[in-house]
Amino acid sequence: MIDTFDATATLEARIRQDPAQFRVLTGDRPTGRLHLGHYFGTLHNRVRLQDLGVEMNVLIADYQVLTDRDVADNLGEHVENLVLDYLAVGIDPARSTVFAHSAIPALNQLLLPFLSLVSVAELGRNPTVKDEIAHSRQAAVSGLMFTYPAHQAADILFCKANLVPVGQDQLPHLELTRTIARRFNDRYGNGTPVFPEPEALLSAAPLLLGTDGTKMSKSRGNAIALSATADETARLIRGATTDSERRIAYDPVRRPEVSSLVLLAALCLDADPQQVADGIGDQGAAALKRTVTEAVNERFAPIRARRAQLAEDRGELRRILAEGNERANALADITLSQVRAAMKHC
Amino acid sequence: MIDTFDATATLEARIRQDPAQFRVLTGDRPTGRLHLGHYFGTLHNRVRLQDLGVEMNVLIADYQVLTDRDVADNLGEHVENLVLDYLAVGIDPARSTVFAHSAIPALNQLLLPFLSLVSVAELGRNPTVKDEIAHSRQAAVSGLMFTYPAHQAADILFCKANLVPVGQDQLPHLELTRTIARRFNDRYGNGTPVFPEPEALLSAAPLLLGTDGTKMSKSRGNAIALSATADETARLIRGATTDSERRIAYDPVRRPEVSSLVLLAALCLDADPQQVADGIGDQGAAALKRTVTEAVNERFAPIRARRAQLAEDRGELRRILAEGNERANALADITLSQVRAAMKHC
Repeated sequence: MIDTFDATATLEARIRQDPAQFRVLTGDRPTGRLHLGHYFGTLHNRVRLQDLGVEMNVLIADYQVLTDRDVADNLGEHVENLVLDYLAVGIDPARSTVFAHSAIPALNQLLLPFLSLVSVAELGRNPTVKDEIAHSRQAAVSGLMFTYPAHQAADILFCKANLVPVGQDQLPHLELTRTIARRFNDRYGNGTPVFPEPEALLSAAPLLLGTDGTKMSKSRGNAIALSATADETARLIRGATTDSERRIAYDPVRRPEVSSLVLLAALCLDADPQQVADGIGDQGAAALKRTVTEAVNERFAPIRARRAQLAEDRGELRRILAEGNERANALADITLSQVRAAMKHC
Repeated sequence: MIDTFDATATLEARIRQDPAQFRVLTGDRPTGRLHLGHYFGTLHNRVRLQDLGVEMNVLIADYQVLTDRDVADNLGEHVENLVLDYLAVGIDPARSTVFAHSAIPALNQLLLPFLSLVSVAELGRNPTVKDEIAHSRQAAVSGLMFTYPAHQAADILFCKANLVPVGQDQLPHLELTRTIARRFNDRYGNGTPVFPEPEALLSAAPLLLGTDGTKMSKSRGNAIALSATADETARLIRGATTDSERRIAYDPVRRPEVSSLVLLAALCLDADPQQVADGIGDQGAAALKRTVTEAVNERFAPIRARRAQLAEDRGELRRILAEGNERANALADITLSQVRAAMKHC
């Protein structure tokens, strides 16, 4: 078994040494506003990699929304809000490509040859698909859901990404992408690989809980959105679940709700959670919540100000997305030409 | 139950009355040269419809080759040979659009929303897929094979074909295309249907057997290719299986091999098979074979001459295909824009 922490540290060192060698594919489904869990889980890291000089491709997965719900409501608005969130946190459209999945036909076409490289059995035993099926809002499993790992391979490989930030639970997905890349190269490459086998960049981010102590989620109303106002933030944190112990401590196993609040403050302050907890000591939950609220509002004030400013020019947002789509289309067209040449389509 | 013969007659009358109302999607896999079974089964009818004034879209299904074999050998050559066969029999590129599936990204993208409209159970119980799986050359059923009816829906609906020539065995496929069109319109149409629900134009062509008395097939060496020379044709027919009865008759149930030869002569001569058989009477199999050889060679002489002439300019063939691809891409781009607008992708 690979020690993933060691592997992550080694990979991180390679990235720092030569960031220009790496090309990342990452992204989100446009199902609502991004929240602080997304920020500390992934957005922050994307901006860090971008600023190191890694090439960043950020996908708005507007077809994958359909895998677990029938109709994607307010899709256009959700897509624009994602672009807003990205720009506000520091994704720079001059250096990173932000694009919508459904606007890149040559990317989507890759699904066809890729589906020929995986068996129905391989698709069916993907644990993420199994899990998504279990949590789906649809009456029956759709063909789109079932073939989802092959779309994801197309999303990653169309731009020849060699680095994909993932959580531990997404490793089987990425493994199928690597399998598809390898099989394509073996079958059609004639000694010259068309696709890289992308590496997983495992997230080192600690888990933030929602304000009710369960998993933070857009749909549960327990998440603090990036775009929340200072007052909304204060109100949400005031209502957060804590426990009856007066002394504040960082003990995620025994006291998950309190510890998640401590962690949030620590992340915002770039401090150690233990020290944050010690600083509050016996002052109880109300003091903790005041600390967290101040830390969040201070940390996100510039991001929120920037977001509000950007939100005033929706035309500019659409222009940025259109430019990202154009760049992604140019990449996808080149890759598709190489794929068709390798497969000897004329 | 619908009486398909009555339905076919009624549809045929509607086509003759107003051919411009109809748009056909039809096509072939590029797996080898077309033969006389294809000619009398479908090619002849395509040219007839084209000449009536029906809009004809002819797909070269160069991805679907991968559904039942791992690598498509000599694909470029097969594609060019299909174009040659089409032009030789009278498909007119000025009136009909001949194009290659893999060259039309916006068509292929339709697979994604379409897959969201069908369940895994629906895909799995398609009898044609079941049958193809049973006859597949692949070790395991690929994702491409499994999702094949949804690709076929994309092939048909990208150009909004409302008429699809099919055999009885392909009706379940077309039914799924109709289901996808209906579901898309219901879910996203807002009262204005984006897609037609295409009708089946059932083939009335009688079944020609191969020269060995089994199903005529490119891969069994029992088929007379459109492009065969007069001598090759004579040799193949000379070697055809017959039976030991001296008297020639048209009796497909009791004497399938002899009857298929009689039928082939009758089709070539535009005559009634019974009369052809009576004309040979007691002269036996050798006389039958002479009649068939003459009839085939006479009927196909102009087509073969035309084919040989066209084959001399491969550049012109590629230009015709490129022009067809361009037209199909323009159609597909319009349809995809309508689909994205209906789905509110921005």
